[in-house]
Amino acid sequence: MSKIRIGIVGYGNLGRGVELALSLTDDMQLIGVFSRRDPATVQLADSSVPVHPYSAIDDFRDQIDVLILCGGSKDDLPEQGPALAAHFNTVDSFDTHARVPEYFAAMDAAARSGGNVAVISVGWDPGLFSLNRLYGEAILPKGETYTFWGKGLSQGHSDAVRRVPGVKAGVQYTLPSEPAIERVRSGSRPTLSTREKHRRECFVVLEEGADAAQVEQAIVTMPNYFADFDTTVTFLSEAELREQHSAMPHGGFVIRSGLTGADQSTNQVVEFALKLDSNPEFTASVLVAYARAASRLAGQGQQGAYSPLEIAPALISPKSPEQLRKELL
Amino acid sequence: MSKIRIGIVGYGNLGRGVELALSLTDDMQLIGVFSRRDPATVQLADSSVPVHPYSAIDDFRDQIDVLILCGGSKDDLPEQGPALAAHFNTVDSFDTHARVPEYFAAMDAAARSGGNVAVISVGWDPGLFSLNRLYGEAILPKGETYTFWGKGLSQGHSDAVRRVPGVKAGVQYTLPSEPAIERVRSGSRPTLSTREKHRRECFVVLEEGADAAQVEQAIVTMPNYFADFDTTVTFLSEAELREQHSAMPHGGFVIRSGLTGADQSTNQVVEFALKLDSNPEFTASVLVAYARAASRLAGQGQQGAYSPLEIAPALISPKSPEQLRKELL
Repeated sequence: MSKIRIGIVGYGNLGRGVELALSLTDDMQLIGVFSRRDPATVQLADSSVPVHPYSAIDDFRDQIDVLILCGGSKDDLPEQGPALAAHFNTVDSFDTHARVPEYFAAMDAAARSGGNVAVISVGWDPGLFSLNRLYGEAILPKGETYTFWGKGLSQGHSDAVRRVPGVKAGVQYTLPSEPAIERVRSGSRPTLSTREKHRRECFVVLEEGADAAQVEQAIVTMPNYFADFDTTVTFLSEAELREQHSAMPHGGFVIRSGLTGADQSTNQVVEFALKLDSNPEFTASVLVAYARAASRLAGQGQQGAYSPLEIAPALISPKSPEQLRKELL
Repeated sequence: MSKIRIGIVGYGNLGRGVELALSLTDDMQLIGVFSRRDPATVQLADSSVPVHPYSAIDDFRDQIDVLILCGGSKDDLPEQGPALAAHFNTVDSFDTHARVPEYFAAMDAAARSGGNVAVISVGWDPGLFSLNRLYGEAILPKGETYTFWGKGLSQGHSDAVRRVPGVKAGVQYTLPSEPAIERVRSGSRPTLSTREKHRRECFVVLEEGADAAQVEQAIVTMPNYFADFDTTVTFLSEAELREQHSAMPHGGFVIRSGLTGADQSTNQVVEFALKLDSNPEFTASVLVAYARAASRLAGQGQQGAYSPLEIAPALISPKSPEQLRKELL
């Protein structure tokens, strides 16, 4: 059987994760990486894979089955996504929740115009967490769904810390509250405040001569980002930050706590949890599995946009439905 | 919109659970229950729903959209399933793992002969656990999948306990080993023996004059059932058994521990866990959600057998794909 031919658009942490995830599959091959940077400056993990300028991508229409889009949701995907979906089957990790309907519509129209398949919002949230919210509420219609995030590095909150005057460098971790998770797991359905669900930990390198107390106060009182949370600030050296805080862990929990039975008095708790040592490598692994689904849907003659919610699970596995039923049911 | 018209075949714990689960939906209605017992002796939760003899079921072909089959996998489904799938859309919880391919083939042929849809092996294992094994291995191809069951009442093992001479009544619980789960959660990928993964707890009422030590010895050394496990036996009175051990809790864990990255050194752990206060009520809730999918697949003109692995998640939700994307992505 011929392999599914993949192109990667954008080579940051996510693009690199996709390259590595593809190397763990037997049924997919990486044809090339497309970058807006000077291709000579893009160093792949596998130096035998060619890097092409993004501007030349249309020349590769006949050589690529699925493009995996590894750009950002804010600036890259809204523009690149529809332009590429008109000419290629695509998979992306669009994650701006409020703009999903609009992006889906744009990708659907573009993909249909070219007879292609576009799979959007692939990853873990949105993505696997969305799937678990769906299974939970469909199976247990009476109940509550809870999402907790972390422990994980938050890019947006780390940026906010770094904008505080006196901060030279820093990172922020979001941590789920273990007591809150235990309450939810127990089958109670508490109403939890923002402060009760998560706390925040900041690790900060001060500028020469900056006032630690002032910096800490500026962080913990920052509206929207920290004021509603219990936040701790730890100061450390630049070397310590580099050594101890360079990884990109993340994860979280989706818990559906439902009720069944004659008087709706039977507790049923469904939990999905991720503990990821690398957020981009995991998201990349999900993208690669759904690239397989995109290729199959296109092979069936399907067209238009999809999210993981509308894709049969068997389509993401390299195994046949027969083999999956025999091994996994 | 007209409601999906449901019939229940078989009214034991599972059938009753289905009746109760249907009452929590807004888009489905129970048309009737079909039983091989004398209908006058079958007491439903809602006495306004008619009970019909199983032998008359073919008369209801035009009044029922989906039949939910609540018989057992050993004796009932292999015979009833294909007979009914020839005339109705069906959903069942067939769970004899080794016979799934054979049952799927029989249901597929029967359903196609009548232009119907048959969804098999719906529940949590097989079912939701199977789905999570699939997502786990497709996303993290390098890794190990672990399944732990319990704490839960095991019907087969309880029957084995009750067959021991001197035992008047009793139940058996399967318990997952917490230390083993913690090792797997940590990202290590241990090889675990049967004894390391689960232990067993028996609660036994002795016959008048039976020798407790002898009964305990007979249980803990029983081949296949108990000899390979750490098993405890607790003796109690018939009243205590009834008061403390009448519920049917169950649950368990599916954990995929995978590796990503350049040298496959990044740990990624995906966990799915169920804590069910009533096993039959939860299985019934899954059946009802997949009855919705069966009705939709049939409405699209699909035919033949399906398992949850081949069914797009959105099909089990009462919400539209647009609403699901807006709310859950």
